[in-house]
Amino acid sequence: MSLTRRNFLQFVGTAAGAEAVHLTMQALDLAGAGAAHAAPPRLLGGSGEGTSVVILGAGVSGLAAAYELSKAGYRCTILEATGRAGGRNRTVRAGDWVEEFGGRQRVDFGEADHLYANLGAARIPYHHRAILGYCREFGVELEVFTNDNRAALFHDRERFGGKPVVARQVITDTRGYVAELLAKAVGQGALDSELTGEDKERILEMLVSYGGLNPDRLYKGSNRGGYRGAQVHAGLKTGEVNAPLDLGEILQADFWRYKLHFSHFLNQNPTLFQPVGGMDAIVKGFEKRVGRLIRYRSVVKEIRQTAGGVRVVTGNGAVEADFAVCTIPAPVLKDIPGDFSPRTRAAIGAIGFVPAVKIAFQARRRFWEEDHAIYGGISWTDQDITQIWYPPYGYHRARGIIVGGYIWDDAPGLRYGGMTPPERLRAAIAEGERVHPGYGAELEAGVSQSWRETPFQKGGWPKSGHGPPEALQRPDGAVFFAGDQATALPGWQEGAALAAHAAVNAIHERVRAK
Amino acid sequence: MSLTRRNFLQFVGTAAGAEAVHLTMQALDLAGAGAAHAAPPRLLGGSGEGTSVVILGAGVSGLAAAYELSKAGYRCTILEATGRAGGRNRTVRAGDWVEEFGGRQRVDFGEADHLYANLGAARIPYHHRAILGYCREFGVELEVFTNDNRAALFHDRERFGGKPVVARQVITDTRGYVAELLAKAVGQGALDSELTGEDKERILEMLVSYGGLNPDRLYKGSNRGGYRGAQVHAGLKTGEVNAPLDLGEILQADFWRYKLHFSHFLNQNPTLFQPVGGMDAIVKGFEKRVGRLIRYRSVVKEIRQTAGGVRVVTGNGAVEADFAVCTIPAPVLKDIPGDFSPRTRAAIGAIGFVPAVKIAFQARRRFWEEDHAIYGGISWTDQDITQIWYPPYGYHRARGIIVGGYIWDDAPGLRYGGMTPPERLRAAIAEGERVHPGYGAELEAGVSQSWRETPFQKGGWPKSGHGPPEALQRPDGAVFFAGDQATALPGWQEGAALAAHAAVNAIHERVRAK
Repeated sequence: MSLTRRNFLQFVGTAAGAEAVHLTMQALDLAGAGAAHAAPPRLLGGSGEGTSVVILGAGVSGLAAAYELSKAGYRCTILEATGRAGGRNRTVRAGDWVEEFGGRQRVDFGEADHLYANLGAARIPYHHRAILGYCREFGVELEVFTNDNRAALFHDRERFGGKPVVARQVITDTRGYVAELLAKAVGQGALDSELTGEDKERILEMLVSYGGLNPDRLYKGSNRGGYRGAQVHAGLKTGEVNAPLDLGEILQADFWRYKLHFSHFLNQNPTLFQPVGGMDAIVKGFEKRVGRLIRYRSVVKEIRQTAGGVRVVTGNGAVEADFAVCTIPAPVLKDIPGDFSPRTRAAIGAIGFVPAVKIAFQARRRFWEEDHAIYGGISWTDQDITQIWYPPYGYHRARGIIVGGYIWDDAPGLRYGGMTPPERLRAAIAEGERVHPGYGAELEAGVSQSWRETPFQKGGWPKSGHGPPEALQRPDGAVFFAGDQATALPGWQEGAALAAHAAVNAIHERVRAK
Repeated sequence: MSLTRRNFLQFVGTAAGAEAVHLTMQALDLAGAGAAHAAPPRLLGGSGEGTSVVILGAGVSGLAAAYELSKAGYRCTILEATGRAGGRNRTVRAGDWVEEFGGRQRVDFGEADHLYANLGAARIPYHHRAILGYCREFGVELEVFTNDNRAALFHDRERFGGKPVVARQVITDTRGYVAELLAKAVGQGALDSELTGEDKERILEMLVSYGGLNPDRLYKGSNRGGYRGAQVHAGLKTGEVNAPLDLGEILQADFWRYKLHFSHFLNQNPTLFQPVGGMDAIVKGFEKRVGRLIRYRSVVKEIRQTAGGVRVVTGNGAVEADFAVCTIPAPVLKDIPGDFSPRTRAAIGAIGFVPAVKIAFQARRRFWEEDHAIYGGISWTDQDITQIWYPPYGYHRARGIIVGGYIWDDAPGLRYGGMTPPERLRAAIAEGERVHPGYGAELEAGVSQSWRETPFQKGGWPKSGHGPPEALQRPDGAVFFAGDQATALPGWQEGAALAAHAAVNAIHERVRAK
């Protein structure tokens, strides 16, 4: 028999009928509410005509603001200090240059579409609706970014003989011990005041499943952690399960301080994405629409409030406009003379940026896939490089780009930032050797970026923990602030987009109120 | 400054020197060992010349056997009962037909490269080296298959008011309660006999991080579970964390029986893959190389041992060969007359197959992405359909194919298998409506496959739990058995490939010993 679309709807009708229609309407209501929250500002076309806005910075926030304002008819100019758009959305490929205060590096990767590195933004979580909305609108093709790869490694120089341990085993064994210990406590009645008799029975059953315990509720290793030696999974025969790691060693290792549950953090939760071919596909989408509004190499020297709006002085002339959207990063903005209230000044001065450093290497051979079955994901080490990322793209192809260090803590970030680029590569290779012996000999090119040493950035992203700076969420005269630094989502493109939307809406309210 | 490949190696030399070379050699030794284990048989070219092998079944196991034997010069014939290769590696697209004993269904999906369904094999875990090796060799492009999507839903008709709960919250809250309870027990000294004083201090610290506990080591919800309402993540302001789900309800729901830790199972562990464009890309890779050896519509009627080898009688003639590789599924093989030992017969008869059913729908709108930010992954329900899969491909495009039911347990599998295809779609929609109200009205075409009702298959895959059938891991006369059913990895293409490799090696040993 054949099902055509026509008779398909008859089946549905039979099955669900009026109830389906009702439920659909409910679902659409719900969708509406969600969409309204996630969607960019919907200003009336033409409602901004006659109003000018100067946007400081052609990063994601500035570009999003220009795009939304332009759609409504505002006359926008974007002043960008560097020669490129994107800001910390930065993808490098063969022949690109990375500029720092101390000099510049040429990117010496091979020429193939999978030989690139995202030196800034690298992930888009599923719930970042504003950025995903732009991806959808611009036709940016997405592929999964892998944080959580159970074949990747955990490395602590002081534990497990200084050898890396497979994530699968650390995660399985930690969970197993937690379940065993809790089952013992519950079984002994130690938690009788916390649990009803019924819950007690159920939780004991649950823990066996949760932790992979044996019928005596003991953790003796589990095939979730893999089989011994080269077998890993069952094959012709069932293998011998790996002996569990020592609990004392697990507790002494630094893994559990957060690395072990990194992918449980809301912004690191699966499903995550990256644009196919490089994060700057998003920038290119914006550039196609508002690139003509950008004045490159326009370094802002002064930001002045005027009777009619703002006057922004740059190294190559001044721009006057009714409003400004300022996305200049706080470490740069704090040194620019401008007519800001003491409150605004204080807020800008209080934002400390993370001295983030990313180091990328081109490997002549995808040894992580070939030798270790590591496809994408992250290995962790207690050394300064912190992480090694394996590319979640170009699987099985010749060569590959790995992130050989991604540093954000102060001390290691400043240490690596203070090195010359060749010193950084040497240091990262020496550390990487302890995670992947032989590593250095597999690598053939490398590039690094210290965002603190990057002109017109001077840092990776605002340190979190203080909440959003309220003073930057309201305008100061005709200047509206944007950028991820103005949100509770620092370091994320979503923050940059949401701040842009807020600034656009606020400008629009001001214009309407006139 | 510029780093060229030439001076790059100098940096490495400086950094690591002789030690790097030594470590590289160690790494390569290690790689060698791993590769040897994972690689297909390496028979000498031409070593099989003059020997003929008849292969029963053009599924992945039969194709892999034919490919490896052919490379070594064996003369191979593949007898395939149906009109297509691939067996349970089955991708359907617009215009395809799904055949069952009760009749056939035409697949009425739209024509676009993302409008397909993998009705059989759908995942490749990172450690399935044999199948990944073929993907690499054949240039099959891979993309990530998502099991674990924290935006997907858990649904138990009896719990949480019968409403689905977001995975992120169930996983976070369960973990939080486990950590809180264990912290209480440890804090009260209930586990003092299990833990040293030092471990006790450390585990308390660890549990705070593990479970997202507050400083009093209590679980009061965590932003890992997301923020209230439409906010989900922090935006301009930090949101209000969701109140934790009730522990009693969590314990009464069926989630934790295995669904909650599904992705912890070794074969469901990230990273998993699917070939871009459909699982049958692997079959096409084999067909390109050994497709000319396949005789379609050749139904095996008898398998006879002869003085010189084997004689296989089909509906359209007999084939004689020195050896046979038999991959015919046990539920079919058991009814084929053949010269097998009682031991072999008993082993074949003992393998019970799972009555797997998969149901796929085409949706006119990717409501899971648009309304729920669900990109790929699986929702679980305690209803017969068991799972709803969201496509980990074609993100943000028009239309999409979801799996509206994937059933493997006996009772629901037999119930759905016993329905007509339209009845299955109606039933799956009615169940799906409880997970996604309004669901049915979003769907515009559907197809189902009961593998038990599929001619020449009669089942999904061997029920596990008994270990591999040893009798099928040795030849019976000139007949060597293969297929996933002959391994400890039933239901996986990797099992099919490993069994093929074992049969090929065993035949080769027999020939060499002559």
